[in-house]
Amino acid sequence: MKLYSYFRSSASYRVRIALQLKGLPYEYMPVHLLRDGGQQLLPAYRALNPDALVPTLLDDDHVLIQSVAMVEYLDETHPEPPLLPGSALDRAYIRALALEVACEIHPLNNLRVLKYIKHTLGVTEEAKDAWYRHWVELGFESVNTNLVRSGKAGRFCFGDTPTLADICLVPQVFNAQRFNIDVARYPAIAKVFDACMALPAFQQAEPKAQPDAE
Amino acid sequence: MKLYSYFRSSASYRVRIALQLKGLPYEYMPVHLLRDGGQQLLPAYRALNPDALVPTLLDDDHVLIQSVAMVEYLDETHPEPPLLPGSALDRAYIRALALEVACEIHPLNNLRVLKYIKHTLGVTEEAKDAWYRHWVELGFESVNTNLVRSGKAGRFCFGDTPTLADICLVPQVFNAQRFNIDVARYPAIAKVFDACMALPAFQQAEPKAQPDAE
Repeated sequence: MKLYSYFRSSASYRVRIALQLKGLPYEYMPVHLLRDGGQQLLPAYRALNPDALVPTLLDDDHVLIQSVAMVEYLDETHPEPPLLPGSALDRAYIRALALEVACEIHPLNNLRVLKYIKHTLGVTEEAKDAWYRHWVELGFESVNTNLVRSGKAGRFCFGDTPTLADICLVPQVFNAQRFNIDVARYPAIAKVFDACMALPAFQQAEPKAQPDAE
Repeated sequence: MKLYSYFRSSASYRVRIALQLKGLPYEYMPVHLLRDGGQQLLPAYRALNPDALVPTLLDDDHVLIQSVAMVEYLDETHPEPPLLPGSALDRAYIRALALEVACEIHPLNNLRVLKYIKHTLGVTEEAKDAWYRHWVELGFESVNTNLVRSGKAGRFCFGDTPTLADICLVPQVFNAQRFNIDVARYPAIAKVFDACMALPAFQQAEPKAQPDAE
């Protein structure tokens, strides 16, 4: 497999974790989001991924886009260890946590959105940072409440093995830390984050461990 | 089942379509997003759904949040007709289309985000509308390209039966039309939309057919 990735992209980080957890080797194809006016916007990349976003996953000559869809695919094609274990209700809980990050937090914080806020809406750097923090804090409050209320969390978001929920949450915590958000204010998230980061799969997938890390 | 819904919410509309396609009866619990300062923000609703968003689905006393997770759950618990048919690669394509809407378009357009843009960032009504259209147009361009390139689209996004992809796409087209976006500019989307709207399930789930429609 080949993964088109940028070290700091949290959507790319999700798929890197899934590949590591499954023990699947892959070729790392760096796409620099800030060079050449954004390498993800170049025609050759767009020919692969019409979203002009990272990551893109190639399995033989099959092109996959959208990180959460990739993780579901990897889980279907390589079932062990399961990233969506348990009952249908358990999976609904795991997917909901993942989507609280992937639909409610991350889309508001990604590079192209921050650029639009800054350059097209013309707000100050302070207002842009406040926007970023607002959506992370609102989202983390919900995720933390969900983790506590569900009764389903263990060492990880669901029980004692990492799932799609942890795969989405951990990269978002990395992003939050870059914007100086104190994750200790969300104790259930902080606990899961520490448990994940003790695992080699999460360490090997983290931004600083990538070949294109700066 | 009970569905907490707002007639105009496109995330609610997704779940209403899935329930109709599966032939599952449910009780409609209206949550008015504009009354009482937003009924989704009231403590009684937050006690149910920590995201303070619609929809929320109750299956007996089990509470489900996040619309895409609900549709996956309904598909697992009521497999016919399948909303994620085909091979693992087919499902990756279907989920990717759904997430192109659910992660790249809709999060930037929902009510609380538009409120923040208008009231906190203080931009003009025109700039807010331009923001809305920008993300819909960018997203629809990608979805349209994906539909054309994949070779997997038929009458619907995947083949000749509606799937999770159509369930996410159709409500987004409704939203786009409210903001006067000409969907005919995206011919593959327009074709799928027309095919979907010929089906009773999509008609019965549409905003104007809901008990809280205005």
